[in-house]
Amino acid sequence: MRLKLTIAYDGRPFAGYATQPNGNTVQDRLEAALAEVVKEPIRVHHAGRTDAGVHALGQVVHFDAPETSSMNPFNYLPALNSKLPSTIRVMDCEETAPDFHARFSAKEKTYQYRLSLAPVLPPLDAGLAWHLPRQLDPVTLEEALALYLGEHDFRNLCAKRGNETADTDYCRTISRSDFETTPDGYLLTFVGNGFLYKMVRMLTGSAVQASQGRLRLDEVSDLLDDTNSEGRKPPLCAPADGLTLLQVSY
Amino acid sequence: MRLKLTIAYDGRPFAGYATQPNGNTVQDRLEAALAEVVKEPIRVHHAGRTDAGVHALGQVVHFDAPETSSMNPFNYLPALNSKLPSTIRVMDCEETAPDFHARFSAKEKTYQYRLSLAPVLPPLDAGLAWHLPRQLDPVTLEEALALYLGEHDFRNLCAKRGNETADTDYCRTISRSDFETTPDGYLLTFVGNGFLYKMVRMLTGSAVQASQGRLRLDEVSDLLDDTNSEGRKPPLCAPADGLTLLQVSY
Repeated sequence: MRLKLTIAYDGRPFAGYATQPNGNTVQDRLEAALAEVVKEPIRVHHAGRTDAGVHALGQVVHFDAPETSSMNPFNYLPALNSKLPSTIRVMDCEETAPDFHARFSAKEKTYQYRLSLAPVLPPLDAGLAWHLPRQLDPVTLEEALALYLGEHDFRNLCAKRGNETADTDYCRTISRSDFETTPDGYLLTFVGNGFLYKMVRMLTGSAVQASQGRLRLDEVSDLLDDTNSEGRKPPLCAPADGLTLLQVSY
Repeated sequence: MRLKLTIAYDGRPFAGYATQPNGNTVQDRLEAALAEVVKEPIRVHHAGRTDAGVHALGQVVHFDAPETSSMNPFNYLPALNSKLPSTIRVMDCEETAPDFHARFSAKEKTYQYRLSLAPVLPPLDAGLAWHLPRQLDPVTLEEALALYLGEHDFRNLCAKRGNETADTDYCRTISRSDFETTPDGYLLTFVGNGFLYKMVRMLTGSAVQASQGRLRLDEVSDLLDDTNSEGRKPPLCAPADGLTLLQVSY
């Protein structure tokens, strides 16, 4: 039986989602909790790898319950939550099709990025927003974000993992890239069919730089679809703090 | 020159407000930051001691700037915030009267206590609310909270620090004790001329127990003004998680 979990986590205490040798990742904690519940090691597959400090409200993972297990899907939620730290929660658990894959079946992902312009960042927001020391121009922010819409080669707006080849596909389609005003700043929303490594943070960094007059809109535009990126200075990568994986759609 | 600071903190990483031998308290961090800024040790006096895990949005402290210092009060705020961890922030700094005392000049304090009835407590709320596994009756909650209003002897609704004497005054006047409904539960507000050790958490614990049918309203009432508390079972102390010192009025 294949199970689909929706999980939420506070990214602050963890070294990212994906498993690491030191073990302090969301995946390590989740697999340890699952092993305790089903009494055997289980590999969990995720929709989106999130970096250290990045939060999630709707990360999706799947795994195959052991054939010997008679546990009802409904019971995984309280069982796992009782083993997990309170900064990781299983929000939903359901049985899914045997060919469902958290990553490969995903159609779209939604990320949000929070900018705070509060004079002093309140302690409870520490690690949950990018604290910007000076105002930005919302009209330019909107224009910069709109440049990302549609299908583009985003090779200049992502970081390299080191395993890229000549065939690596940097094309992604962004269907939403805008913001709403909040009491202390702005909340950016990005929806796309996929996002490259650190791409949301670089989309955010470049749009913020444009909105602060540090980058012209045509310079942001030039970053897109330029497959000859030799010698190009990488754009500003916004800190992990403000980023949340909100939802994965199937 | 006497300075009055309004400070906010996330209580989760600290062993309470007041200084402790291990040093991991808000006061220790604040005094260390202040010593770095003014280049000499400074003792800071606080309005209300908060326990480990309790948060503050409007804790007030005062201290006397060294006579040799020519630093403008306005400059303490950024200087201290640059030395403090992001989970402690100076929100305001102003010069005050030489006889002002953060604790003894205080007229009223406001505490809030957050109850969450979410089916699963979201990770970002971990440590910020008391997660109650079952519904409560809001009418009874309101009635229980109203019992606390006015002047009462609260010796049965506080914890002992061990330094109490026959002359210890347990009388306090509560001018507000009610709640509002929030998207995931209830937010209790207590305003009073002072609060004894763990008193807000015991007022909350008893009111919640009444609202869940575990304590009758007359049993809550019996806790008040009973100066003969020999052999009485102490009431439930709500966890520190949901408690915030909101404001101190002068």
